[in-house]
Amino acid sequence: MRAVDVIIKKRDRGEHTREELEYFILGYTRGEIPDYQVAAWAMAVLLNGMTPRETTDLTLVMAYSGHVLDLSDVVPRAVDKHSTGGVGDKTSLVVVPAVAAAGLPVGKMSGRGLGFSGGTLDKLESIPGYRTDLTVEEFKRQLREVGAVLTGQSVDLAPADGKLYALRDVTGTVPSIPLIASSIMSKKIAAGAQAIVFDVKVGVGAFMRTLDQARELATLMVDIARQTGRRAIALLADMNQPLGHAVGNALEVKEAIATLHNQGPRDFHEHCLTVGAYMLWLGGLVDSVDAGRARLADVIASGQAWAKFRAMVQAQGGDVRAIDEPERLPRARYIETVPAPRGGYIAGVHARRVGETAVLLGAGREKKGDPIDHAVGIEVHAKVGDAVQPGQPLFTVHANDPAKLAQAREALLAAITWSDTQVEPLPLFYGIIGE
Amino acid sequence: MRAVDVIIKKRDRGEHTREELEYFILGYTRGEIPDYQVAAWAMAVLLNGMTPRETTDLTLVMAYSGHVLDLSDVVPRAVDKHSTGGVGDKTSLVVVPAVAAAGLPVGKMSGRGLGFSGGTLDKLESIPGYRTDLTVEEFKRQLREVGAVLTGQSVDLAPADGKLYALRDVTGTVPSIPLIASSIMSKKIAAGAQAIVFDVKVGVGAFMRTLDQARELATLMVDIARQTGRRAIALLADMNQPLGHAVGNALEVKEAIATLHNQGPRDFHEHCLTVGAYMLWLGGLVDSVDAGRARLADVIASGQAWAKFRAMVQAQGGDVRAIDEPERLPRARYIETVPAPRGGYIAGVHARRVGETAVLLGAGREKKGDPIDHAVGIEVHAKVGDAVQPGQPLFTVHANDPAKLAQAREALLAAITWSDTQVEPLPLFYGIIGE
Repeated sequence: MRAVDVIIKKRDRGEHTREELEYFILGYTRGEIPDYQVAAWAMAVLLNGMTPRETTDLTLVMAYSGHVLDLSDVVPRAVDKHSTGGVGDKTSLVVVPAVAAAGLPVGKMSGRGLGFSGGTLDKLESIPGYRTDLTVEEFKRQLREVGAVLTGQSVDLAPADGKLYALRDVTGTVPSIPLIASSIMSKKIAAGAQAIVFDVKVGVGAFMRTLDQARELATLMVDIARQTGRRAIALLADMNQPLGHAVGNALEVKEAIATLHNQGPRDFHEHCLTVGAYMLWLGGLVDSVDAGRARLADVIASGQAWAKFRAMVQAQGGDVRAIDEPERLPRARYIETVPAPRGGYIAGVHARRVGETAVLLGAGREKKGDPIDHAVGIEVHAKVGDAVQPGQPLFTVHANDPAKLAQAREALLAAITWSDTQVEPLPLFYGIIGE
Repeated sequence: MRAVDVIIKKRDRGEHTREELEYFILGYTRGEIPDYQVAAWAMAVLLNGMTPRETTDLTLVMAYSGHVLDLSDVVPRAVDKHSTGGVGDKTSLVVVPAVAAAGLPVGKMSGRGLGFSGGTLDKLESIPGYRTDLTVEEFKRQLREVGAVLTGQSVDLAPADGKLYALRDVTGTVPSIPLIASSIMSKKIAAGAQAIVFDVKVGVGAFMRTLDQARELATLMVDIARQTGRRAIALLADMNQPLGHAVGNALEVKEAIATLHNQGPRDFHEHCLTVGAYMLWLGGLVDSVDAGRARLADVIASGQAWAKFRAMVQAQGGDVRAIDEPERLPRARYIETVPAPRGGYIAGVHARRVGETAVLLGAGREKKGDPIDHAVGIEVHAKVGDAVQPGQPLFTVHANDPAKLAQAREALLAAITWSDTQVEPLPLFYGIIGE
């Protein structure tokens, strides 16, 4: 087999065999096939597509390119969740401890933010001392002893995906649904997941802009899960406006803490109950999604979910004083509200523009490795459907630089669409795929 | 500007500006943009295409990526020819000295063979001592003093094309008509050509298999020539069967010598007259193509074309004894005929299979840098339309290895298609594009 023939096959719309994908992807991972051949192939895949069978094979090849976690000695059925990324999405921070408190241990490996989309690890690192670099042994021990883990991906897992993703990032080959699906699923399989809830975001603040794209990705991921003997469902979740109120790392941790104290924003609380309920159901802990939802509402109301979060933070070296008294979390120098310049109904809060404004303030990164400022961000006070009086606060901006603060005020006002007539609130979910 | 945005533009079917192509291609040539980004872009170009305007801009960017020859102090109008490559195509060896003998000096930079397609430089190197590595100064001096030059491309010319072509070769991105056209034209412009005759081969033994593809490439090259202020025509020439009788380096030199002595195969002689006549016409030396053809027939019949070839070989260090007495050229150890296993009419002599058999014998190379054997090759005695008796010689195989000889016999018999009824000979040309 020659690498150039694998490229030519995909260029000419052929379907790869499992052997071809193994040869090509593992050869690349070992450094035997150069970047430039894989880059040409990735562009051919993006433009010509892959069948579900090819995508499943690519997933398995990448998943088994390194160490694959076996959690069967720690949990009866390892349940995971995955969000495709959005603005204000701090769901894992609530759902992982809540599901654990409900009796199903959850160990999750999360990622960092890039562009307008935030990342769970960045948020957690707002908590002084919190370690996101657990070893596999530490991960398993904490999963067994505490029942809840939120850490970074160990470098050993799915190295082929890591290498391929870095190449796609600089060659314009990220937005390929088969490549996105196989990248996500390979990491989940390598992390030992036996059941997965996909939180597929759709809208202007998501990578999938249209419902058709989101449905295609969701269907493909659920299909791969089935083909590889995993249980999975995918929720199609709105990401036209930010989720909850807080956008920015420490601000989102505060909102997650409030939610775990049963005082979270209505939409975010509801989102967490739904995601968590499906996890409990796929994990076999409850007989129905409704029963899962009731169980989660209970453990949040009773404080058990909060106690689990606190135990997780403590186990991972975080300073619990900073979560017991969240005013101790990083705090920006300039905190100012943005009042409504007019009255009316909110027809849109453009999630991507809000996310990009958070990046402008320093909450996110333009490119991998950029430093981030945990203190800065935005509180979103108005959501689609709200009636607003002139002068009422639309946003609160948390900034460490007066010039950026001024820019952010402008950008945030431009993110709002107004209506003179009543507007329906946005749904939280557009559909469910799988099971 | 960022390289990844240039890739994304082409991925999304955008049209590049001249500035984008300059940034991307010159950045690549200088080593500032890595192979993997250019590989992804080349695949996007192959699959999404380029407009003629983009292709012209790419041509000019590559042509001016290095030194551009100015031959205006040596010849009134520099005329060049280019064949897209085929089997048995030794046209340059005859046409360059013949056109020069007719009064129009021609300096041509040729290439090497790859795969089933032979290369002029490899053929010329059958002549002991013949130098194909003239410097630009030697090239110009010989063009002025002798009037005929056949050498390799100086490394200074169109370095961007050289680097891009090498990358395309290993990334499955060769067969893109805009990339092929801009590669050919950039080298012609850099070599100082003011008028060009394209000999676009079409058929099973050519890179363009169909007349539509050949016409597309021919039209694009003629269009680029016009847009850049050059005169050009393109001949669409048959390459379903080998051109002439000889396939293999020294064998083809012998056939060229015979043709220059007015004793060449009819089809090859006629092909040379047509290509050369268009060169004389584009060069302004004659008023019509017919006048050009008559002039060439004269200089061949009178021995002037042969004398010019001899002077060129001598000027480039070649041993003229080897061309005065061609039996001194490299000669294979085993020379055997392949008799017809049956009688009938020849319906096909599959040019690519014949070319591949020559490579098998050692006359060509599978990949760049492979050594070649100048002595081996094939004489093709039967052409499409011929009536053949059982036992009549179809081929003569020249081999240096008995095992390969046996394989070649098999392969050559498989290259023949038979008919029980009379068959029309193949035309030499299917059409002319331009002027």
